[in-house]
Amino acid sequence: MPKLNENFLKLEKNYLFINIAKKINAFKQANPDADIIRMGIGDVTLPIAPAVVDAMKKACDEMGVKETFKGYEDSGAGYDFLKEAVSGYYKSFGADVSPDEIRINDGAKSDCGNIVDIFGDDNIILVTDPAYPVYVDSNLMSGRKIIYADSNEDNGFAAMPDYDVHADIIYLCSPNNPTGSVYTREQLAVWIDYAKKNNAVIIYDSAYEAFITDPNVPRSIFCVDGADEVAIEMCSLSKTAGFTGMRCGYTVIPDKLKVIASDGTEVSVSQIWGRRQGSKFNGVSYPVQRGAEAVFTEKGLEQIHENIAYYQENARIIADTMSELGVKFTGGINSPYIWFKCPNNMGSWDFFDLMLEKIAVVGTPGAGFGKNGEGWFRLTAFGDRQRTIEAMERFKELIKSL
Amino acid sequence: MPKLNENFLKLEKNYLFINIAKKINAFKQANPDADIIRMGIGDVTLPIAPAVVDAMKKACDEMGVKETFKGYEDSGAGYDFLKEAVSGYYKSFGADVSPDEIRINDGAKSDCGNIVDIFGDDNIILVTDPAYPVYVDSNLMSGRKIIYADSNEDNGFAAMPDYDVHADIIYLCSPNNPTGSVYTREQLAVWIDYAKKNNAVIIYDSAYEAFITDPNVPRSIFCVDGADEVAIEMCSLSKTAGFTGMRCGYTVIPDKLKVIASDGTEVSVSQIWGRRQGSKFNGVSYPVQRGAEAVFTEKGLEQIHENIAYYQENARIIADTMSELGVKFTGGINSPYIWFKCPNNMGSWDFFDLMLEKIAVVGTPGAGFGKNGEGWFRLTAFGDRQRTIEAMERFKELIKSL
Repeated sequence: MPKLNENFLKLEKNYLFINIAKKINAFKQANPDADIIRMGIGDVTLPIAPAVVDAMKKACDEMGVKETFKGYEDSGAGYDFLKEAVSGYYKSFGADVSPDEIRINDGAKSDCGNIVDIFGDDNIILVTDPAYPVYVDSNLMSGRKIIYADSNEDNGFAAMPDYDVHADIIYLCSPNNPTGSVYTREQLAVWIDYAKKNNAVIIYDSAYEAFITDPNVPRSIFCVDGADEVAIEMCSLSKTAGFTGMRCGYTVIPDKLKVIASDGTEVSVSQIWGRRQGSKFNGVSYPVQRGAEAVFTEKGLEQIHENIAYYQENARIIADTMSELGVKFTGGINSPYIWFKCPNNMGSWDFFDLMLEKIAVVGTPGAGFGKNGEGWFRLTAFGDRQRTIEAMERFKELIKSL
Repeated sequence: MPKLNENFLKLEKNYLFINIAKKINAFKQANPDADIIRMGIGDVTLPIAPAVVDAMKKACDEMGVKETFKGYEDSGAGYDFLKEAVSGYYKSFGADVSPDEIRINDGAKSDCGNIVDIFGDDNIILVTDPAYPVYVDSNLMSGRKIIYADSNEDNGFAAMPDYDVHADIIYLCSPNNPTGSVYTREQLAVWIDYAKKNNAVIIYDSAYEAFITDPNVPRSIFCVDGADEVAIEMCSLSKTAGFTGMRCGYTVIPDKLKVIASDGTEVSVSQIWGRRQGSKFNGVSYPVQRGAEAVFTEKGLEQIHENIAYYQENARIIADTMSELGVKFTGGINSPYIWFKCPNNMGSWDFFDLMLEKIAVVGTPGAGFGKNGEGWFRLTAFGDRQRTIEAMERFKELIKSL
């Protein structure tokens, strides 16, 4: 048998959310009548906007007619109509990103996991802890050295750089998954400065940008000066427009961003990533791209904003419950996530089990996101309004009973 | 700046088909009135079957209604409805593949390129030459040692194993891209035997299986005894059902297939690949999966078979032209590709330029697929009937003028 990539043996056997799904299934088998409320995995529940459905159906019809049928995309990086729409969207919140700097993909997770392929294995990776597991797992799979910047109660779960520590590749996520914290413009400027001083690249995950309401919290790292020399940004329509089951996102690699070869020559990151994708990716389904384009029309934006407002109200309800109960938390504003401290210094997984067993509410144990997540817990605001209210009623009962 | 993965510098700067597209664009600029016929890239031209369009539109409507909306797939490996449909399809040509051994993806290229991630970098890779560039490029990107089995005029461009040479991972493609050659059941049995003797894994690309008409040419490697102990199969709906712009394929990893860790323990390939995909892939768009399901219904199969028959007739027209002209070729039967020897011992790229300049017909230079492709040329049967006939008329003139 061929030799295994042994790095896989260093990983948790399953991706976090698969482990959680298994626990839920076991609970359901033991308690078939339990009325489970899911506030765990960050999945949306509101349907796709009508403008998107119409655009997709029109594109499906086009695919059924020879004259308008679309085969392979020439570039595999997305149709111009969608790259232009995304570029316009960036412009609407003050980021200057040209269509040629945008690549369309099947969701942020793919590019986020695969981007490391183009970097050497001897780079030092800096991840804020806690973090979305893909940043860590995708680097463990290739055997890279990972160091951590602590996000914790003291810094509001928004780690800042330590100038005494060197890193080559930095993962940042704002609004943060799982903690709901955000970086201000000034904080991002510090990270950009740190990246420049270390000749590092920032991989910036802005998947939750649509939830930002505070004008001093940038919707994109490219709203901040100098970012185009150091950052790659990944975003998705999953949370912006409920595309978790549709699969469409985009990655921005500025033209100015370079990587260095051992002979000292500078190489365009965009060109190398394009070469990788040319061999390992063939673009996004045409009807899905037409649906994504519709998100950025006037009507589409109006419709998705209604959905986002709905989730924001859920977040407010959860946050208000925490405040009322005196439970410490971050997030809930600028973010669909509420990250709270487990009562009585309980561990995250113990609290997960307790919530599942006592009130049949599913959340995500903070420990699943890194060591600083231990003792913390994530709830999402992506559920149904009545179910969110019901979950918070149950949660109050639970906390009061402890 | 972070260190580059230097393996990327060993690659051709662009993926083959991007280079060809550039040549065509330059020709078009110089000759804006030229009536170019494209028989180069293996893209289909007939529209998606009506049953597929209907199923996709229905799924788009479902996505627009809260009660039927679909978010993330639990597994990311495909919905049961589609895995069961693919399993039934395999059964129809004698391969016993259970739904759990099937993973749905966004096209064969992604899995084909990414599968190497789960294997150690010290495996020896065997590729038949000429071959689809992804097999080579995806291994060059990770710095693996590649050895070649020669496909050439003497063996009908269907390389067989050399038992004196060891390999750990073997890429086979039948019907072959680019040569149109096929492996018989007996030939595949030899490759399986070789793989077993070398404890090797075969990565079997069956993307063109729908074009097979000869009953002694298996539609899947899993039609052959013992394959489930040594093979991974990758297939796609791109050529089967015109899904090049829809993006859906599937990978079969048998439960029996193991890979060995350095401590001697056997690890399930399916489990490790699932772990990789859990972190780096989030499944295929729900409407696309519903469209793919419709391909395998009675009505869908009837409709796609009409399209395949159309392309097969194109292949016959091209093959008959070659026979009439006395040009040596393989393929054209069991395959949408015709692989012919360039006249007068011309080099592949010289002949590409000649065809483009003299008769405005675009093909693919055999040299782009490996050293044994030099002096050979690929044409595809995926074009329009009248344009294919027109191209062959021009081709006859060209050959007679030489």
